[in-house]
Amino acid sequence: MRVIVAGGDGFCGWPTALHLSAQGHEVLVADNLSRRAIDDELGTNSLTPIAPLRDRAARWSQLTGRKLRVAIGDVTDAWFVHSLFAEFEPDGIVHFAEQRSAPYSMVDRQHAISTQVNNVVGTLNLLFAIHEFGGHCHLVKLGTMGEYGTPNIDIEEGYIEIEHNGRRDTLPYPKQPGSFYHLSKVHDSHNIMFACRAWRLHATDLNQGIVYNAQTEETTMDGVLVNRYDYDGVFGTALNRFCAQVAAGVPITVHGRGGQTRGFIDLRDTVRCIELALEHPPPAGEFRVMNQFTEQWSVLQLAERVSRAATGLGLEAPIQHLANPRLESESHYYRARSSKLVDLGLKPHLLDDTTVVRLLRDALRHKDRVRLDTMAAEVDWRCVPYWEKQRAPAGIDRFHHGRRSRAADG
Amino acid sequence: MRVIVAGGDGFCGWPTALHLSAQGHEVLVADNLSRRAIDDELGTNSLTPIAPLRDRAARWSQLTGRKLRVAIGDVTDAWFVHSLFAEFEPDGIVHFAEQRSAPYSMVDRQHAISTQVNNVVGTLNLLFAIHEFGGHCHLVKLGTMGEYGTPNIDIEEGYIEIEHNGRRDTLPYPKQPGSFYHLSKVHDSHNIMFACRAWRLHATDLNQGIVYNAQTEETTMDGVLVNRYDYDGVFGTALNRFCAQVAAGVPITVHGRGGQTRGFIDLRDTVRCIELALEHPPPAGEFRVMNQFTEQWSVLQLAERVSRAATGLGLEAPIQHLANPRLESESHYYRARSSKLVDLGLKPHLLDDTTVVRLLRDALRHKDRVRLDTMAAEVDWRCVPYWEKQRAPAGIDRFHHGRRSRAADG
Repeated sequence: MRVIVAGGDGFCGWPTALHLSAQGHEVLVADNLSRRAIDDELGTNSLTPIAPLRDRAARWSQLTGRKLRVAIGDVTDAWFVHSLFAEFEPDGIVHFAEQRSAPYSMVDRQHAISTQVNNVVGTLNLLFAIHEFGGHCHLVKLGTMGEYGTPNIDIEEGYIEIEHNGRRDTLPYPKQPGSFYHLSKVHDSHNIMFACRAWRLHATDLNQGIVYNAQTEETTMDGVLVNRYDYDGVFGTALNRFCAQVAAGVPITVHGRGGQTRGFIDLRDTVRCIELALEHPPPAGEFRVMNQFTEQWSVLQLAERVSRAATGLGLEAPIQHLANPRLESESHYYRARSSKLVDLGLKPHLLDDTTVVRLLRDALRHKDRVRLDTMAAEVDWRCVPYWEKQRAPAGIDRFHHGRRSRAADG
Repeated sequence: MRVIVAGGDGFCGWPTALHLSAQGHEVLVADNLSRRAIDDELGTNSLTPIAPLRDRAARWSQLTGRKLRVAIGDVTDAWFVHSLFAEFEPDGIVHFAEQRSAPYSMVDRQHAISTQVNNVVGTLNLLFAIHEFGGHCHLVKLGTMGEYGTPNIDIEEGYIEIEHNGRRDTLPYPKQPGSFYHLSKVHDSHNIMFACRAWRLHATDLNQGIVYNAQTEETTMDGVLVNRYDYDGVFGTALNRFCAQVAAGVPITVHGRGGQTRGFIDLRDTVRCIELALEHPPPAGEFRVMNQFTEQWSVLQLAERVSRAATGLGLEAPIQHLANPRLESESHYYRARSSKLVDLGLKPHLLDDTTVVRLLRDALRHKDRVRLDTMAAEVDWRCVPYWEKQRAPAGIDRFHHGRRSRAADG
């Protein structure tokens, strides 16, 4: 199968590109390298040193004899998308090419708008390109479990049957996203659903949980192939961040009581889920939605898990509770379904101590790269106007209303 | 009350601005004049001749002694929005400043994207401005009944209580919009709902039905105040279009069998609904949704209504059924609630023959202005790639992939 991995230089995109290539698919990585640019903006970095995209791709080809094409460009640029379709003629496109951090989207007006415009326009360009080139190409789109929010009823996979005043219908599951980023994914879902209906496209929306683990079978084959490992307050996510905190010798930080429950998935399952979705496309016209996570945990449960494993290695790993900068309930009902990918053949990697210990060891190996000032979750969901802020997230310069106030760093 | 009417030069915006001014509110009209620019793009016009915005506003002040401020600018421009808030200090903002035609959004990729970016970014800018200026200003946003689509259950006002697997929650009503325009309104609704929750704003989303009638008490006070009357295939809507067709001596055209049922509202009720919403703001943090229509009709019922009234005036008014360029069911369940505005005090103008006859007489008076070539509904929902198109909508030049093909007109 000929597959474009859009956003194939990022945290999930890169291991997906390698995995699909290892399975024998012809892969083209398309990326505008924006994730690296955001590191420059925020003053953050990957805990693991990562090689330039072209070097990564060349090393993969050298090691495996499999060609991995690279196209540097932006999916919000219709000409770029058109040229990819005209020249590569994809059977499938995996779409990771979106700004994926909720805190980043909540920094201020400009970050909220750039997140929504980037994500919505990129997806629209892909939909139009698929349609104009005959509708054959299967779109595999990364959504997020965060689209659903935390309703007081069970979360289903995309749709829910509703009985109301004596009548019934199966309707899109109501969404209650909790940031401008999560909202952008809800917008995408609605746009793709419509395009499937209007143009009889094949599309799969994968509402992914929070991804932990940072390496896969393929990324550990060679140092140049190593995947990024985010641990900062804006792009890092729960479990990986906790391990980095332990390695850096600072407390594991939990927002509020840590009762926020979410779906989680091992990165090794992410790449397998994408493969399964690609190899089993839905029929034309169906907007297929699958929830891509394997286990539910509360944030505090994960923190305790990491703390226990760290203690076993003789490390200090206290847990510290901080004020929650997000607007979310810390104690709520949460039960989400995720059976469709298992039905397609997924055999989940459930979280075990081996994984936690390996993540801790990875983090310890690179502990000198940790930038402590980027670790706090400094983006406040209230988007307080700049003149009321004590400080901005490290590395973010504020340009509000033409006055520039360089925020003091931590 | 100090009220900004964004999009106050348009079909609903202008009569709303005058009505609010007549009620004693201090009104500022903000508009980028894009509706007039789109007329230039499409080669369409208003059946009624309309005066320049500044002339309209000056005449109103002259006639009534009430100041009507005008600011020419674009709500997608954050600086413009900021200056409005800083200088006018609004208590309320009525937001009509969106691209409002479904067919226009379906012309091609560029029109789809410009519609979504314009509508989403404009609304985000207003939300951020309201928040940054203290959250006092009440946002009254025009949504559309088209956000709901045509579900097989009753449509409620914004929210629905769902029982599922033995648990209950009240959730946002699931949306099934039928064009990139309708999708943009769904995106707006989600964004506003989140902002209300995150920042405790006051916002009202008015899901408006299809508006008929073209003049109000205020717009008929003087020739310079006359409101626009759209009859073309891209911006014209059912009842008004039918009257223009009769006046032009062409058949009334109905797509398919005409069984598509929708909610309708008289323009005189639109302006009153806005007034009621403004004068009764929701509490901080509530995203209030009200369905703004007064009666349900099928398209065929309206066509027959116009035909009958026209025959009474001695006019020829045959009904012609055409292929439906939209993707919509022509026979479906449709029952939508709209009681909240009546509860606030709305006394609906129900459709009567007097209104139809007056619209017919208005159309006859201006029948020489009708451009027949703009009347057909030429935008096909399939968004067929340009190289397969027989012809483009009148006035639309296609720039696909750098090759320019001027579509042949009618």
